[in-house]
Amino acid sequence: MAVVATTVADDDLPDFDAVVAALGRLGPRLARTPVVRSDAFDAACGRRVHFKCENLQHGGAFKFRGALNALLLRPAGTDVVATHSSGNHGTALALAARQLGLGCHVVIPEDASRTKLRAVAAAGAVTRLCAPGLVAREAALARWLEEAPAHLVHPFDDSRVIAGQGTAALELVCEAPALQVVAVPVGGGGLLAGTALAVRGAQPGCRIVGVEPATADDAFRSFRSGRRETLQASPPTLADGLRGAIGARNFVLMRRLVDEIVTVSEAQLVAAMRTVLQHFRMLIEPSSAVAVAAVLEGLIGAPGDHVGIVISGGNVDLMQCRFLAGSAATAPPQPGEARP
Amino acid sequence: MAVVATTVADDDLPDFDAVVAALGRLGPRLARTPVVRSDAFDAACGRRVHFKCENLQHGGAFKFRGALNALLLRPAGTDVVATHSSGNHGTALALAARQLGLGCHVVIPEDASRTKLRAVAAAGAVTRLCAPGLVAREAALARWLEEAPAHLVHPFDDSRVIAGQGTAALELVCEAPALQVVAVPVGGGGLLAGTALAVRGAQPGCRIVGVEPATADDAFRSFRSGRRETLQASPPTLADGLRGAIGARNFVLMRRLVDEIVTVSEAQLVAAMRTVLQHFRMLIEPSSAVAVAAVLEGLIGAPGDHVGIVISGGNVDLMQCRFLAGSAATAPPQPGEARP
Repeated sequence: MAVVATTVADDDLPDFDAVVAALGRLGPRLARTPVVRSDAFDAACGRRVHFKCENLQHGGAFKFRGALNALLLRPAGTDVVATHSSGNHGTALALAARQLGLGCHVVIPEDASRTKLRAVAAAGAVTRLCAPGLVAREAALARWLEEAPAHLVHPFDDSRVIAGQGTAALELVCEAPALQVVAVPVGGGGLLAGTALAVRGAQPGCRIVGVEPATADDAFRSFRSGRRETLQASPPTLADGLRGAIGARNFVLMRRLVDEIVTVSEAQLVAAMRTVLQHFRMLIEPSSAVAVAAVLEGLIGAPGDHVGIVISGGNVDLMQCRFLAGSAATAPPQPGEARP
Repeated sequence: MAVVATTVADDDLPDFDAVVAALGRLGPRLARTPVVRSDAFDAACGRRVHFKCENLQHGGAFKFRGALNALLLRPAGTDVVATHSSGNHGTALALAARQLGLGCHVVIPEDASRTKLRAVAAAGAVTRLCAPGLVAREAALARWLEEAPAHLVHPFDDSRVIAGQGTAALELVCEAPALQVVAVPVGGGGLLAGTALAVRGAQPGCRIVGVEPATADDAFRSFRSGRRETLQASPPTLADGLRGAIGARNFVLMRRLVDEIVTVSEAQLVAAMRTVLQHFRMLIEPSSAVAVAAVLEGLIGAPGDHVGIVISGGNVDLMQCRFLAGSAATAPPQPGEARP
């Protein structure tokens, strides 16, 4: 696969202090999401797992943290903000913009989840559809910005966004007991980079692991090769939030701070969704389930370890969850089965 | 229907101070459950609704609060505790007993949810099945207590339990903005009585409403008649946690402190489960859904009111949730459809 150039000045990268400052800035505007655990889940994986429930964040995902942090740091005179998003960042930006009295334009790829598409519009954004893949998304957004100037808030390759996303893990390590390892999903890498900054700063000895679907494994390959590798336009994974490739800033932070990237299969992520529903009665989105799947598969930490996981979001199309009714032994759906 | 005598000395009733003391006693042993809300849900019911998520409490229900409070106040020398329970109180008592190194015996009616039955055993209790209905449950427990003496912790007619249950609403009114009304489900009435004590004490102007399934409406009838009315042994409702009749202490506290009891149909509670799953991605148990259904039906407070609801638990059998895949217009299942 192709490789893209990565040149990021250190000035352009957020640090631990930026995450701490973001948490102070966001403060009471955030939902106070809980950290939950279950003896039954722990017995199933042999670890003591602490789940930070960002599925209960405003907009149903951690994305509200980064989007609002960016908007609170917007340039003076900003009236309208714009972005491209597979859904959760778009909803988050629209919610944050509405809080601050700003307009919001969101480009959404056609392969986005229908639930997310509706949520972006319900949050007050003006939306436009485009072809799947980062290239098409950025092209559609560039055209729109020419027609209607707006302040761009990139979904993951933006220091303000990265620092905001890191606040979820900062809350997690402050609330959970000393963790040996923290695991999060990787799409564009904003959550991973922010988490890595937060955890390295607050609990230096804790390992940081990113988890990807095996069918959208650009971060896994980039981590090993040391070059930022690309991804096909619409990789065949149920994890609709993880179909993008890792951003430039996030690639650099990943290489500096992250200990390991692992991958899971589609069958494993479906089984993880079912397990979370059984033990916590929470329906989490496939993109969240990759980190859960990795711990269930024994890929995160050692037996007996305290593990922290950020449940990144819960925005899944209910009508597409037929597979949840099957037993764990049932074959998982083909990726297409869970799409609109 | 029949009426049962109710004589309770005032000394036997908990008060607001008992709820405050319980919260201090339980303190860090509780899961810090969140209060969540959703613009979309609010738009659907015309109120501003704040949900206290006791489905995320240890054991998946508020019952852990009352059970642990009772055990922390147990008589000296207690080695084994015992109760009868449709499930959640049994699990809660077993979890609390395990924390304190005590044995635990639980009588469970045959019509209990299979998920709950498994959970009681998994929490470490020794279990025995009995016929449905309060009379059979109490008879089976009495026989067991003769064979194996133990300290009885009644699931709802116990001042320590009532005070413990009230701590959920106490946390809710402390965290949510000034509420006009708080609504909770009513089975044996422990949650209602505890909530009434907490809300009357902490926010005296706030209304308190109990919600029952129309097919298990003994509290509704008792509230109106002023006499404690009974219920058939296994009333036909999906709300397996609300099939019991109101306890003596809870009846007295209801008459003194509660403003209104309302009822909802089975179709309405199923629709409410679906709505919560759609807006919050949380699967709540039918017994929790009655209060949600009542607010969706316009039975709780006036348009624009701030409403507090305790989501009492999330322990539902996944395999019996086929009905959730239907549209809101679909006919609801017969009660039997959602049972083991």
